[in-house]
Amino acid sequence: MTAPFPFSAIVAQEEMKLAMILTAIDPTIGGVLVFGDRGTGKSTAVRALAALLPPITVVQGCPVNSARTADVPDWATATTTLTEVPTPVIDLPLGASEDRVTGALDIERALARGEKAFQAGLLARANRGYLYIDEVNLLEDHIVDLLLDVAQSGVNVVERDGLSVRHAARFVLVGSGNPEEGELRPQLLDRFGLSVDVASPRDIDTRIEVIRRRDDYENDTTAFMLRWQAEDAAIRDRILTARTALKDLTTSEADLRDVAALCLALGSDGLRGELTLLKAARAYAAWLDDTALTRSHIRATATMALRHRLRRDPLDEAGSGARVGRILAETLG
Amino acid sequence: MTAPFPFSAIVAQEEMKLAMILTAIDPTIGGVLVFGDRGTGKSTAVRALAALLPPITVVQGCPVNSARTADVPDWATATTTLTEVPTPVIDLPLGASEDRVTGALDIERALARGEKAFQAGLLARANRGYLYIDEVNLLEDHIVDLLLDVAQSGVNVVERDGLSVRHAARFVLVGSGNPEEGELRPQLLDRFGLSVDVASPRDIDTRIEVIRRRDDYENDTTAFMLRWQAEDAAIRDRILTARTALKDLTTSEADLRDVAALCLALGSDGLRGELTLLKAARAYAAWLDDTALTRSHIRATATMALRHRLRRDPLDEAGSGARVGRILAETLG
Amino acid sequence: MTAPFPFSAIVAQEEMKLAMILTAIDPTIGGVLVFGDRGTGKSTAVRALAALLPPITVVQGCPVNSARTADVPDWATATTTLTEVPTPVIDLPLGASEDRVTGALDIERALARGEKAFQAGLLARANRGYLYIDEVNLLEDHIVDLLLDVAQSGVNVVERDGLSVRHAARFVLVGSGNPEEGELRPQLLDRFGLSVDVASPRDIDTRIEVIRRRDDYENDTTAFMLRWQAEDAAIRDRILTARTALKDLTTSEADLRDVAALCLALGSDGLRGELTLLKAARAYAAWLDDTALTRSHIRATATMALRHRLRRDPLDEAGSGARVGRILAETLG
Amino acid sequence: MTAPFPFSAIVAQEEMKLAMILTAIDPTIGGVLVFGDRGTGKSTAVRALAALLPPITVVQGCPVNSARTADVPDWATATTTLTEVPTPVIDLPLGASEDRVTGALDIERALARGEKAFQAGLLARANRGYLYIDEVNLLEDHIVDLLLDVAQSGVNVVERDGLSVRHAARFVLVGSGNPEEGELRPQLLDRFGLSVDVASPRDIDTRIEVIRRRDDYENDTTAFMLRWQAEDAAIRDRILTARTALKDLTTSEADLRDVAALCLALGSDGLRGELTLLKAARAYAAWLDDTALTRSHIRATATMALRHRLRRDPLDEAGSGARVGRILAETLG
Amino acid sequence: MTAPFPFSAIVAQEEMKLAMILTAIDPTIGGVLVFGDRGTGKSTAVRALAALLPPITVVQGCPVNSARTADVPDWATATTTLTEVPTPVIDLPLGASEDRVTGALDIERALARGEKAFQAGLLARANRGYLYIDEVNLLEDHIVDLLLDVAQSGVNVVERDGLSVRHAARFVLVGSGNPEEGELRPQLLDRFGLSVDVASPRDIDTRIEVIRRRDDYENDTTAFMLRWQAEDAAIRDRILTARTALKDLTTSEADLRDVAALCLALGSDGLRGELTLLKAARAYAAWLDDTALTRSHIRATATMALRHRLRRDPLDEAGSGARVGRILAETLG
Amino acid sequence: MTAPFPFSAIVAQEEMKLAMILTAIDPTIGGVLVFGDRGTGKSTAVRALAALLPPITVVQGCPVNSARTADVPDWATATTTLTEVPTPVIDLPLGASEDRVTGALDIERALARGEKAFQAGLLARANRGYLYIDEVNLLEDHIVDLLLDVAQSGVNVVERDGLSVRHAARFVLVGSGNPEEGELRPQLLDRFGLSVDVASPRDIDTRIEVIRRRDDYENDTTAFMLRWQAEDAAIRDRILTARTALKDLTTSEADLRDVAALCLALGSDGLRGELTLLKAARAYAAWLDDTALTRSHIRATATMALRHRLRRDPLDEAGSGARVGRILAETLG
Repeated sequence: MTAPFPFSAIVAQEEMKLAMILTAIDPTIGGVLVFGDRGTGKSTAVRALAALLPPITVVQGCPVNSARTADVPDWATATTTLTEVPTPVIDLPLGASEDRVTGALDIERALARGEKAFQAGLLARANRGYLYIDEVNLLEDHIVDLLLDVAQSGVNVVERDGLSVRHAARFVLVGSGNPEEGELRPQLLDRFGLSVDVASPRDIDTRIEVIRRRDDYENDTTAFMLRWQAEDAAIRDRILTARTALKDLTTSEADLRDVAALCLALGSDGLRGELTLLKAARAYAAWLDDTALTRSHIRATATMALRHRLRRDPLDEAGSGARVGRILAETLG
Repeated sequence: MTAPFPFSAIVAQEEMKLAMILTAIDPTIGGVLVFGDRGTGKSTAVRALAALLPPITVVQGCPVNSARTADVPDWATATTTLTEVPTPVIDLPLGASEDRVTGALDIERALARGEKAFQAGLLARANRGYLYIDEVNLLEDHIVDLLLDVAQSGVNVVERDGLSVRHAARFVLVGSGNPEEGELRPQLLDRFGLSVDVASPRDIDTRIEVIRRRDDYENDTTAFMLRWQAEDAAIRDRILTARTALKDLTTSEADLRDVAALCLALGSDGLRGELTLLKAARAYAAWLDDTALTRSHIRATATMALRHRLRRDPLDEAGSGARVGRILAETLG
Repeated sequence: MTAPFPFSAIVAQEEMKLAMILTAIDPTIGGVLVFGDRGTGKSTAVRALAALLPPITVVQGCPVNSARTADVPDWATATTTLTEVPTPVIDLPLGASEDRVTGALDIERALARGEKAFQAGLLARANRGYLYIDEVNLLEDHIVDLLLDVAQSGVNVVERDGLSVRHAARFVLVGSGNPEEGELRPQLLDRFGLSVDVASPRDIDTRIEVIRRRDDYENDTTAFMLRWQAEDAAIRDRILTARTALKDLTTSEADLRDVAALCLALGSDGLRGELTLLKAARAYAAWLDDTALTRSHIRATATMALRHRLRRDPLDEAGSGARVGRILAETLG
Repeated sequence: MTAPFPFSAIVAQEEMKLAMILTAIDPTIGGVLVFGDRGTGKSTAVRALAALLPPITVVQGCPVNSARTADVPDWATATTTLTEVPTPVIDLPLGASEDRVTGALDIERALARGEKAFQAGLLARANRGYLYIDEVNLLEDHIVDLLLDVAQSGVNVVERDGLSVRHAARFVLVGSGNPEEGELRPQLLDRFGLSVDVASPRDIDTRIEVIRRRDDYENDTTAFMLRWQAEDAAIRDRILTARTALKDLTTSEADLRDVAALCLALGSDGLRGELTLLKAARAYAAWLDDTALTRSHIRATATMALRHRLRRDPLDEAGSGARVGRILAETLG
Repeated sequence: MTAPFPFSAIVAQEEMKLAMILTAIDPTIGGVLVFGDRGTGKSTAVRALAALLPPITVVQGCPVNSARTADVPDWATATTTLTEVPTPVIDLPLGASEDRVTGALDIERALARGEKAFQAGLLARANRGYLYIDEVNLLEDHIVDLLLDVAQSGVNVVERDGLSVRHAARFVLVGSGNPEEGELRPQLLDRFGLSVDVASPRDIDTRIEVIRRRDDYENDTTAFMLRWQAEDAAIRDRILTARTALKDLTTSEADLRDVAALCLALGSDGLRGELTLLKAARAYAAWLDDTALTRSHIRATATMALRHRLRRDPLDEAGSGARVGRILAETLG
Repeated sequence: MTAPFPFSAIVAQEEMKLAMILTAIDPTIGGVLVFGDRGTGKSTAVRALAALLPPITVVQGCPVNSARTADVPDWATATTTLTEVPTPVIDLPLGASEDRVTGALDIERALARGEKAFQAGLLARANRGYLYIDEVNLLEDHIVDLLLDVAQSGVNVVERDGLSVRHAARFVLVGSGNPEEGELRPQLLDRFGLSVDVASPRDIDTRIEVIRRRDDYENDTTAFMLRWQAEDAAIRDRILTARTALKDLTTSEADLRDVAALCLALGSDGLRGELTLLKAARAYAAWLDDTALTRSHIRATATMALRHRLRRDPLDEAGSGARVGRILAETLG
C-alpha cells in the first residue's frame, strides 16, 4: 500500500489542520467533524494525520493497546513486554458490521472448542488512537449512536451473543460529512468536540499548487515523501512538546468567565461547549508555546469549538461560523 | 475506569437530586424520568448516584442479588454465603439486544452440554438496584414496554427460546429523555414514578462553578474525589436513617384527602398519581427527619410526582410544571 | 412473589367484578374485554381473580390440564394420578413469541435426541382457565387473531416446524385495553363475550378509600390478606353453587323473544350477541340463586353483552353503553 | 372434540347451503367464497359440511389420499390396501407457515439420517376434499396466490429447500370473507367458482329459531345430533345420486347460447364465468333429478356463479347480486 | 396429470399463437409477453405449446440439457449417451425461491459430505426450452431482473453461497401479465422479443365454440386429444421445416431499410426493435415457406415486435398497437 | 460461450470508445459511466473491451492477480510461477451478494476444518482489470458505496464474519446507467473518472449499418470475428505504445493553468475534476503519439472528464455536455 500524502504538504485548509493538531495534543477535547463538499481532500487529510502522530507504548499483543500490563482486560491474553507502535488510526470501512465494530463472540473458538470467548473489534483497536469515519451521513443511525456513546464514555460495553464484556476505548473520532447529503441530528453534533469547514480553494494559483503537488505525489511518491519528511517531523515534535507543557499551563478566573460569557451569549445548549472550548484554547496555547491561557487563545479556537452547537437561526443567513465570529467580537472585544 | 463525579459536587439541579434521593429511601416510588437538553449533566448525575447508594446484602453468586438463600431462583446456582455489595446501578447500553435485557437460553451450555439453561440478563443484575437508560427516546418501543412492564410488576417473565422462566426484578428505572427528540407515549409516562426537568444554568457564576468543578475533576480526579467524600457519605447515612424512619411515619386522614383532592383537581388519570405522591411525600418527610406526614411534604413533592400525568392542554402555555403549581396553590393553599 | 390484592377488596368497579364472576360460572360466555384509562386497576383486578377462582381436578403432569387420563393428548406424557390445582390464570407477557404462545418444536429434544417432539405453550397451560393479556392494543395483530381463533374454537391447531399437533385449549380470555391507544377491529370486538368500562372514581371519598386500601395492602400485605380472606371465600362458594344451579335453570319462549327483539332493535350484527346475552343472563340468574330466567336478568346483563357489538353511530354522542340502555328501556320496558 | 353442528339444522342461508352441495356434486366447479358479517355462521356451515360429505376410497397411508396405488407419488411410502375414509375437510389455521401449507423438507429425517425427503403439507392432505380458510382477507397475499394457483391447476409444485416435488392437490377451496375488512383483488375473486352472501336474518321468529337450535345443541349435543342424523343422511344420499346422474345429463345448443348471452350481457371478463355457470347449472339439474339442462337451472345458479365476476359499477347501488338478477330477467326472460 | 389442451384447438387468439410459433422457429427472437384480462386462456395456451414443440437431442443426465458431451458444465456429472427428449417447458411456480431459480449450494452434499457442490435450478432445466411465468406482475422485481438478464445473455452466472458457477441458459421466456394489475417497467418490456394482446371474444358464436371445446375436453379428454392430434402434428412438422428454411432465406438491402425506417418513424428507443423485427419477419417468411424476406412479412410481424417499445403517448388514445399500424401504413404503404 | 462482438466493429459511439481506450492507457483515470437509453449497445461495448485489452503478467494461482510473489496477500496461497493472462473484465451479476463482492469467510473450510479462512470475492478477481456493472441504478446503495470506496482507495478492507482482511483491488469501474430510471447521487457521480452519453443513431444509414453488422455477427460469428481481428489488434498495440509514452510526456505550467481555469469557470466542486482532466488529456496525447500535452488535448477530453461534475442548472436546458462545451470555448478559446 502506498504511503499517505504528507500532512505538511496539504495546501491551505488551515482550520482543519489546526483542529487535528489540537486533538493530538489533548485527545480529551473529543472528536473532529469535517464538513465539506466532495473532493475537498477530507479523507486525504485524515490519512495524512496517521503518519504524523507520535508513537505510543503498548503491551505487546494486547488487543486494546494497553499501556501497562495491569490494564490488559481479563478476557485478553498478552505478553508482558512493552513496545512502541504508531498511534493507531483505524478506518471504519463502509459495510463494517456491528459485531466487527464492538467486537463479538469469537465464532471460531466457539465452534472449535465450545468456548464463549470475546473477539475484539474496531473499537478495541482504536483505543488510544483515532477512529475515522468517512461520510458519517451514510452510517446507520444505530452505529453512529453507539460510536458516539463509546467515544464519550471511553468504555465499550458489549451485551450480546450471551457475552457481557467491557474494555477501554478512548479514541478521537474523526468524521467527514457532506452537508448536502442530509444533516446530522443536533444530539450527535454536540458530541463532537470540534468542527471545521473545508472547501475547494477559489484562487487559481492555490488550485494549481494543489494539482501540482498531487500530481507530483502520484507520479513519484518516494521522492515526494522525502521532500516533506522534515516538515512532518517538526510538527510531530511540536505536538509532543505541547503535550508536556499543557499540564503546567495556568488558567485564570477571567478565562473561565470569558468562556462562560461567550457560550451564554451564543445560547449554546448544555455545558459541553464551555468545557471543549476551555480545552481547545489551552491546547492551542501549548501549541504556541505560551505558558498561560489568554483571551487570544479562546478567540482563536471558539469557532471550531462552538460552531456546531448553535440552534439553527433561519433569519441569520451568514451561517453558524459567522454568528460565532460576531458574538465573539461583541463579547470578548 | 475512573471514579464517577461525586453526587454532592453537582452544582444546582436540586429537583433532580431530590428525586433520586427519594427513590433511594423508598424504591417502590418507581422510576425517575429526567427531561432536559443535551449536555445538562443527566448521565453524570446517574453515574454519581451509583457511588452514593448504600450497600446491600446478597447471597454470593446469586444472579439476581437475592437477600436470602430461599429467594435464589431454582434455575440458578449460588453459594449460601451472605455478602455485602454496592447497590447495583446497571447501564442499559445502546444496542443491547432483547435477549441480553431479559436473559435467554444459555447458548454455550446448549451447544456444549445439550442443556436448556437460562442465562440471566440485565434485568436480573438490576434486581434490588437501579437500571439506567440514556435517551429512552432512542430505545425501540418493544424494549421500553418490556422494561416498564417488569419495573412495575417486579417480576421478569421470560417465555422464549423454549424457556419458561421467572425471577424477581425489582429495580428503579432511571431514564433520561430529550423532549426535542420526540415525545413519550402518555401510557409510558404514567409508569414512571417521578419526573424532573433539568436545564443549563442561565446564571454566569453558576456556569463558571460548573466548569471549574468539572475541570478540577478532570485534571486531578483523585484529589477531587477526596474533597467531596465526606459530603457524599453524609447523604448516604441520611438516606439509611430515613429508610428506617419511614416505617413509623404517621399519615392522617387529612393527608389522604389532600392527595386525592389535588389529583382530582388536576384531572390526572387513574390512581397511580395519588399513590406515588403519597409515597414521595412520606419519603421526603423521612428525609427531613419529620415523624408525621404534613401538607408541606405533599406540596414539596407534588410537582415531580404529578407533572407527567396531566393531559396536554394546548391553551396552557406555561407547561405542566406551572399547572401543577397553580392547582397546588388553589387546592392546598 | 407477593399475594395479589384480594378481589373482594376492590373498591367500586361493580360491572367489571360481575363480568368476571359470570365467566367463572359459565366459561362458555367467552372472554371479557376491560376498557379503561391507565391506572384504573385493570390488571390488579385480573390478578385478584386468580386467587378467587375454585380449584380444578387434573391429571398430574398433563401439559393441558386434562380432567381425565383419556383426554391427555397423544404427544404428551402424564401420570394417571388425579390431583386438584388452582384454576390456571396465565399471563401473556409482553414479548412472548408466537412459538411460546402456541407451543412449538422442542428444540432441546430435537438437538439432543433427533426427535421431533412438541413442547406445549401458554395456550396449553391456559386450558380450563384464564388467559390474561394486558393492553391487547400492543399485541401484534397476528397474535391477537390467533388467540381469538383458539379461544372461540377451544382447540389449538399447530402447523409449523414440521409439526401437526392439536390440543384442547378452552380458556376465558381477559384483555385490557385503553381506547386512547387505538381501537380494536370490530371483527375482534365481537369475539369477546362481555365488555366493561372502568374509570377512576370521581368521588373524593371513594378515591380516598381506594388509596387507603392500597396503602394498607402495600404496608402490611399479610394482615390485609387475612382481613379479606372470608369475603373472597364467600364469593368462591357462591360461584360453585351457581355453576350447579345453572343446569336446572328454566328458559321460557318469552325470554328468547326478549333477547332476539333487543338485538334486532340494537341492530347488532350476527347472532353472537343473542347467544352471549342468553348465557350471561342465565349465569346472573344462577348467581342470584333464582331458578328461572326472567326479563330482569336479561336487563341486568344486556349492556355488558352487547355494548361492543353496536355499529358506531357518529350522531349518538352518549356512547355505546347509553345506547344499549335506551333501547333496553324501549324494548323491554 | 365435540361433533359439529348438523348441516341440515342450519336455519335459512339457503344460497350458501346450495352452493356447498353443488360443489359436492361436481368439485370441478371450483371453490366457494362466503361473504358476510361477523357472527352469521360462516364457519359453522363449513364445519357442518365436513360431517355431511360422502366418504372416499384411498390407498392406506398415502399422504395425498390417492385412489389407486398407481397414483401414490414416488416420494411417498404407502400400503397397497384400499380403505374408505371421510372426505377430508382441512382447516387452514391462522399462522400456518408456507412450509406447512405446501410441504417442505422433512427436517427430522434430514438431521437424523442426512436424507433430503419431502414432508407433505396441508395441500396434500386436502387432496380430493375441501380446504377451508376462515377470513381469506387476513391471509398474506403470497399464501392466497399460492392456494388459488394450486386450486386451479390441481397440482402442487414445490421448488424450495433444494427440493423439486409435485403431487396432485385437487380440492375445493372454501373461503369466508368480511367485505368490511378490505376487498379481495378481482384477479382472486375470479378464481373462486361460486360466491354467496350470508346475513343475519331480520325476522324475529327465524332468529329465535336460530338461537333455540344453537342453545339446544350446546346444552345437549348428543341428543341434538341424533335428532338431525336422518336429514343429513338424506342429503348425502341425494348428492351421491346426483353425481352419477351428472354424466348422463344432456346439454342443448340453446343452453350454451343462453350461458354465453348472459355473460356477454353482464360484461363478465374472461370465460371462466361461462364454464362455471354451465357446470353449476348442470349440478343443480342433477340435484333436482332432472335429466336435461334447462333455462330454469341456469337461472337458478347464475347469481352465485357470476356475482363476483362483474366489474364494479359505482352508479349501480343495488349491488352485484341485483345486477345479475336484472340482466338475467332481460336476457333469459 | 391430465394432457394439456391441444394447441390447434384454441379458438381465435391468432396473434398469440403466431408469436409462439415464431419463437419456436427462431428462439433468438426472445421472449413473448402475453397481455390480457383474467380468464382469457393465457396459461392454457402456454401449456398447449409444451405438447406441440419438437423434441431435442440431449446428453442423458446433463442438468442443463447439453446437446454435446463437450458442453456439459464441469460441475455436473452426466453420461456420454445422447437421447431425445421433449422441448423443456418449465413453469416458474409462485413462491419459487431465488435459490431454486438460479441454483444454489447443494445443502444435502454440504451437510453429508462437507463438499461445496452446485445444485442446478430452474434456469438450468429451462436451457434450450421455454420458461413460463404466469403473472409476471406478481413476481418480485429482483427475480424478474435476474430472469431477463439471463434470458438475454444466455448465461446463468451464480455468485452466492461461496459458489462461483456459470452455465448456458438459453430459453424463451413467456410471461403473462394483466395490465390492470400494474404496469411493467419500460426497461423490462424492451427485453421481451414479442408482445401480444389477448381478449375474450365479443362474438357470441365464437364464445359458444370456446365453451363447447373446453366442455368437451373436460368431459372426455382422451377423445378430445385424439380428435386434434393430427392438427398439432402438422404444426410441429411445419415448424421443423421452417427452421431449416430459415438459414437460406435471403434478406435484401431494401428490407433492412424498411425495418430501420419503420423504427425511426415510430421513435422506438434503442436497436432491439430493429433486430427483433428482422428476425420475426424472417421466421414468418419461413413459416409461409417463402424463400425471400419481403415487405409483407415485415408488415405482418411489426405490431408484435414493436408495440411494447413505444414511449407512452397520452394524447393517442388508440393504444400502442393502433399506433404501430398507422405508422406502418404511412411508412411502408 | 460465443465470442464477444469486436470492439472495432462498433458503429459510431466514438466518445464511449475513446473513454474506454483512455482508461486502458492510464487506469488511474478512474471508472467510466455510460449513460444511455435501453438498447444502445452499452453492455455490448464493455464485453467488446474485454477482448481488446492487452494481457497482464500474474503470479499463477494468486486470487488477486498479483504481479510479483511479494504482493501475494498472506491469507492466500499461490505458486511462484509468473504467467500471462488476459486483462480481467469481471461482470457483477444481478443478485450478487455482498459476501461474493467483497469476499467472506470460507464456509467450506470453516465447517470441514474449523479454520477461519478468507475466500476472495469479485473485487479480488477484478484487481488490475475492469469491473463492469450493468445498470448501476439497480444495485443496492450500500453495494454501490462499497464499490466506489474500494475503486478509489485501491484497497478492499473486509471486516465481517470475524475476519479482518485487506487486499489490493485496483480496477477500473465501468457502469452503465439509464437516466430515465432514477438519477445517481452527485456524491457517486464525482467518483467516476469519465462519463459518456450514448444514443441510438438518428441517421438511417448508420442504423442500417448497425443492424447489418449485428445480423452478420449473429448469423456467422466466426467469419465476422476473422474480418475484424486485425483492426482490434491495431488498437491493442496502439494502447501499449501509448502506455509507455505516457511517462515521458511533458506538462507545462500553462496546461495546469488551463485545467484549473476551466474547472473554476465551470464551478465544478472539489479537485477531482482537475486531476482527472489532466490525466485524461495526457492519455489522449499519448494515444495521438504526441510528446507534449497541449490545449487541444485538454479541449478534446474536457467534456467526458467534467460533464458529470457540474451542479444541475435548471435554467440551462442544453444539458451538462453543452455547458462544458460553451465554457470551454469561453475559457480556452
